[in-house]
Amino acid sequence: MKDTHRRGVGGWGGREAGKELPPRARGPARGMPLLVAAAGKTPGAGRAVSGVLPSPQAFRTVEMKRWVICAMIGILTGLVACFIDIVVENVAGLKYKVVKDNIDKFTERGGLSFSLLLWATLNSAFVLVGSAIVAFVEPVAAGSGIPQIKCFLNGVKIPHVVRLKTLVIKVSGVILSVVGGLAVGKEGPMIHSGSVIAAGISQGRSTSLKRDFKIFEYFRRDTEKRDFVSAGAAAGVSAAFGAPVGGVLFSLEEGASFWNQFLTWRIFFASMISTFTLNFVLSIYHGNIWDLSSPGLINFGRFDTETMVYTIHEIPIFIAMGVVGGILGAVFNALNYWLTMFRIRYIHRPCLQVIEAMLVAAVTATVAFVLIYSSRDCQPLQGSSVSYPLQLFCADGEYNSMAAAFFNTPEKSVVSLFHDPPGSYNPMTLGLFTLVYFFLACWTYGLTVSAGVFIPSLLIGAAWGRLFGISLSYLTGAAIWADPGKYALMGAAAQLGGIVRMTLSLTVIMMEATSNVTYGFPIMLVLMTAKIVGDIFIEGLYDMHIQLQSVPFLHWEAPVTSHSLTAREVMSTPVTCLRRREKVGVIVDILSNTASNHNGFPVVEFAGDTQVPRAPGAVDRPSHTCAVLEGFGALMCVGSGLDGCGGVSEEALPPLQDASLPRVFKLFRALGLRHLVVVDNCNQVVGLVTTKDLARYRLGKGGLEELFLAQT
Amino acid sequence: MKDTHRRGVGGWGGREAGKELPPRARGPARGMPLLVAAAGKTPGAGRAVSGVLPSPQAFRTVEMKRWVICAMIGILTGLVACFIDIVVENVAGLKYKVVKDNIDKFTERGGLSFSLLLWATLNSAFVLVGSAIVAFVEPVAAGSGIPQIKCFLNGVKIPHVVRLKTLVIKVSGVILSVVGGLAVGKEGPMIHSGSVIAAGISQGRSTSLKRDFKIFEYFRRDTEKRDFVSAGAAAGVSAAFGAPVGGVLFSLEEGASFWNQFLTWRIFFASMISTFTLNFVLSIYHGNIWDLSSPGLINFGRFDTETMVYTIHEIPIFIAMGVVGGILGAVFNALNYWLTMFRIRYIHRPCLQVIEAMLVAAVTATVAFVLIYSSRDCQPLQGSSVSYPLQLFCADGEYNSMAAAFFNTPEKSVVSLFHDPPGSYNPMTLGLFTLVYFFLACWTYGLTVSAGVFIPSLLIGAAWGRLFGISLSYLTGAAIWADPGKYALMGAAAQLGGIVRMTLSLTVIMMEATSNVTYGFPIMLVLMTAKIVGDIFIEGLYDMHIQLQSVPFLHWEAPVTSHSLTAREVMSTPVTCLRRREKVGVIVDILSNTASNHNGFPVVEFAGDTQVPRAPGAVDRPSHTCAVLEGFGALMCVGSGLDGCGGVSEEALPPLQDASLPRVFKLFRALGLRHLVVVDNCNQVVGLVTTKDLARYRLGKGGLEELFLAQT
Repeated sequence: MKDTHRRGVGGWGGREAGKELPPRARGPARGMPLLVAAAGKTPGAGRAVSGVLPSPQAFRTVEMKRWVICAMIGILTGLVACFIDIVVENVAGLKYKVVKDNIDKFTERGGLSFSLLLWATLNSAFVLVGSAIVAFVEPVAAGSGIPQIKCFLNGVKIPHVVRLKTLVIKVSGVILSVVGGLAVGKEGPMIHSGSVIAAGISQGRSTSLKRDFKIFEYFRRDTEKRDFVSAGAAAGVSAAFGAPVGGVLFSLEEGASFWNQFLTWRIFFASMISTFTLNFVLSIYHGNIWDLSSPGLINFGRFDTETMVYTIHEIPIFIAMGVVGGILGAVFNALNYWLTMFRIRYIHRPCLQVIEAMLVAAVTATVAFVLIYSSRDCQPLQGSSVSYPLQLFCADGEYNSMAAAFFNTPEKSVVSLFHDPPGSYNPMTLGLFTLVYFFLACWTYGLTVSAGVFIPSLLIGAAWGRLFGISLSYLTGAAIWADPGKYALMGAAAQLGGIVRMTLSLTVIMMEATSNVTYGFPIMLVLMTAKIVGDIFIEGLYDMHIQLQSVPFLHWEAPVTSHSLTAREVMSTPVTCLRRREKVGVIVDILSNTASNHNGFPVVEFAGDTQVPRAPGAVDRPSHTCAVLEGFGALMCVGSGLDGCGGVSEEALPPLQDASLPRVFKLFRALGLRHLVVVDNCNQVVGLVTTKDLARYRLGKGGLEELFLAQT
Repeated sequence: MKDTHRRGVGGWGGREAGKELPPRARGPARGMPLLVAAAGKTPGAGRAVSGVLPSPQAFRTVEMKRWVICAMIGILTGLVACFIDIVVENVAGLKYKVVKDNIDKFTERGGLSFSLLLWATLNSAFVLVGSAIVAFVEPVAAGSGIPQIKCFLNGVKIPHVVRLKTLVIKVSGVILSVVGGLAVGKEGPMIHSGSVIAAGISQGRSTSLKRDFKIFEYFRRDTEKRDFVSAGAAAGVSAAFGAPVGGVLFSLEEGASFWNQFLTWRIFFASMISTFTLNFVLSIYHGNIWDLSSPGLINFGRFDTETMVYTIHEIPIFIAMGVVGGILGAVFNALNYWLTMFRIRYIHRPCLQVIEAMLVAAVTATVAFVLIYSSRDCQPLQGSSVSYPLQLFCADGEYNSMAAAFFNTPEKSVVSLFHDPPGSYNPMTLGLFTLVYFFLACWTYGLTVSAGVFIPSLLIGAAWGRLFGISLSYLTGAAIWADPGKYALMGAAAQLGGIVRMTLSLTVIMMEATSNVTYGFPIMLVLMTAKIVGDIFIEGLYDMHIQLQSVPFLHWEAPVTSHSLTAREVMSTPVTCLRRREKVGVIVDILSNTASNHNGFPVVEFAGDTQVPRAPGAVDRPSHTCAVLEGFGALMCVGSGLDGCGGVSEEALPPLQDASLPRVFKLFRALGLRHLVVVDNCNQVVGLVTTKDLARYRLGKGGLEELFLAQT
């Protein structure tokens, strides 16, 4: 075990192999006499600072500011969601109208290949722009952003992830990809957008704009920023699905570690404000100003509780759907895993990425067109809710049912599958659609475009769920009447749960998005089953992508067999220590030395020859070395103590070298630490445990495994 | 500050003032040479145990068991809720029928005072039994049990709180008090019942029955037990209100500190199972077996979203209602505070307590009777949903509207106020009812009966909320049409929020109990306003009662001005230390010495003359000294190390003596500690910080204050 570990350190860092222990960190040889002041009160570091700490009044002002910031986060997130929604609705409406007119024209006189060409070209053009801005301007805006935000909340810094530029690219990108007809949703990116807004407002400055508004300077520290970002993520979920409680739970399930009541209330407040803003603005936009009927970007429509209750018979059927969802989700993730490996290896140049995105857009349009063209499933137009009904080869007063699923934004297709009356879709149509859309969505996720996987997953699930309901009625000779809409909802939950593996928050999101609490229990059963079944095969899509990017991500608990490892074995050595008073030159030297393998520097005190970590805090390395000069004030207070000082992370605690890995792990999770100074029994600094040191260990098939993690 | 503190320690403990520092804790004089083995691997304590730790397979079995236990908790909690519901419904039905027949008889021929006598006697008789079993058999079953469970989850042990006997008394008591016509609800006690069930099942033994089923022995430790109890509390909320998500949030808001995803899923699972069991059994009981329409003990009825949307005009009105609720809640709490002080001082003998309870029951019946008698508010019987319509002096085909509010279980009255059509209640009736019921409920809370305050609060709020709605329409000349049912709901939320000061969980509970997410935003606004306004005057009812019982309860954050205190100043000294290998006789001596002021004993190692806390764990004191002999195995493993050993609390960590109070506080909250060993820079044990040492400090009007806490 010991050997494996040493190899691990070499493989992961490599660079510091030959590095010399800096003289000031070397301290005395162990076992030398240790001189410590006799009992009584040493003028402790903690007390020295107490004068500058906030009074109760100042504390109340700070608390008020936190609430104001949360309100602003909610309002802005809601407005961004409105903007995306309105632009997508209009541009997509225009596109579908143009293509529909074209198809209608050429259906009569032949030559539908022109229509296909028009459709594919339009889609590719949108996606070209959408993909190019992501690939060339801000690659971190790709995808849904959920894995990135998970990492951020976990304490991993990903460069540019909460920049204003990222927000602009993300918003433009998601509009262009949805309008470009890709199998994507605009909901996932809202979570990222909300987080960027939160980070920007709470810090009162923008790196992209190079502007510092000199406000909220109190909140410019990691823990505060992380708290606000979790509120932003919640506001994003809330705006996307009209699910404020679901948003809070999402933030907690995916991000938070330490549950603080006040923080949770603020998160909830931001979520509520966000969904309310969206609701209000969209009500005005839609003309019925006092109505407040659009709480989210997607609204699953009202499920009428009177007519659509479930009975206890149906519970085993729902569980079976959960199993199917888990398996299909695992297949989706496995396919996407191989695809992502392929992309990492071969498609890493921006222009190749743009070409792939355009290819997918063209293929999506073509496949959809072929399916619509060859479908003979015609449904009466009367009483249906299709937005852009394509008549094609159907009789007058009828529309092509395959087109209802394909020729629309995915959000609207989901709602159609949930609510269209029984018989609106032919089983053949649903089966073909499921199959094709499954592969399209799988190919699309991971493209260099800004887009989410929530809606495509729901759409796949809704399609096979509806098929499942129809088949059930058919196979049992209608002995079991399975309402197709209800089964579509359960299928959607099962498929989404099988892919992303969330349970509690997703249950609440689904409950809130359907404005219905009756289905809470079956949805929970379906999601739990999907998660349990899916986890047998492969992990969730987001975790998989986090792992593929070799991010040092801390899971909820230490691997079960890691009790035998101690802090001494996992820690990084050597450690660069700082004195309580250090010359600026020395600090500049240390910070410019990128070869030092960690970003924390324990502050020690020398009593004669002996090094004592008097203030067991660690100074964070500023992101850029140039910040040293600006951050002069912060660095000066290295000497002043451990609490409340910007430059010193206050949570660092010295564990003894023999503490076990799970114990160290628990400290990191519970306190949100980034590094921990390891001392021996004489309080000598012997090493530093960083997040990375802990994230390296995983429970694999053959016991404890070590991962290779990126240098972030 | 220092002086205050010293006085504080003396005043609080007192007994240990003259106590000698035990020789083994005294250690070497500071500044003496310290011998430590040179680098390399010391055979650390953590590794020695690794052999007995669970393998991944064993871990999976344990995890499976946890889920099974949660399912059992859910099922049993649901069944207990069913039992309470069915018994209350039948017995109360019988009582009201008897009294109604009597009233109907005497209305015609005069002599209604006999009816009053019958009613008051019946009520007092029920309450006599209900109060006597609580006062004489198990006083801890009094009240709603929520403050007790909050303390338990906070790590404070209250004797008998999770015993089987307590459950039996609680369930019988709540049935008798509801049937006895007190202004109480049966919902709060469900939370306590769920917790007892959880503790019983998870420990696999019952102290009340003196039976040990030898199952689930792995879970017999504080942290595991606490986790299951939080699941039980959630299951209780879920069964009471049909609110599984609300239950999870209640557990987290009121109890949990460390948010663990797996734990949360299990809590959610238990909640879902609980509401489902209740729903299923009640459906069978009510005859419509496949219907699943009774998710909770109280169901607020369906609010139809189509007709009862709110508009943006109404938001300021809702906020105003929140202000009213906050003020009325503060008045309620202040009155109850004085009453409780009076009770603590004068009514502490069980027989006096029983007499007070009977008095309240008789007064409640009398006041209700007088109000009903003198009311001239008659409403047409047709189309109304009143269960026991009293005609009294109304015309035929009409009923007495005051009787509809009083002559019923409070649960049914709440639903009537929410859903009865506009005009069902006269404003005068509502005003009188609010006033009278407010004082009755305030007097009732804190009686020695087992009963909750949720439903009375909702009822008071619903009454004035409905009145508010009617007045609004009237005052504005019907320019604002305020649906009385909707305003009753908001009033109920405001009043309950003003009394108990919960926000997130209560919002979700209200949303789930009304099966409606549309009102989420206004309910949240109302609850937040009520909390903010109420907090200006006095704290929430539960916190107030916790403080009145001088329980060392840790709030979410350290008082803001406590940064100037260090661990050295708050810690308890002297500390009794144990060696890694200690003679049983010595341990028996230490544990029998009740004068030692804390229940944790740091394990230290002696290297020559020097004391080193090799395993920085602390051994918990068993609740009873006689457990020493039974617990022989546990005590033997003192020598074996810190992890995974039953007798050693694994979270204890040594902080340095100069760590500030907020930092120590954060450690306690985040890791759920009960005591923390304080070491100096040489790693010598200098003291022990316990929960009590932290809970003593509060932010009062004049800055930091010290409380006197009970010796628990």
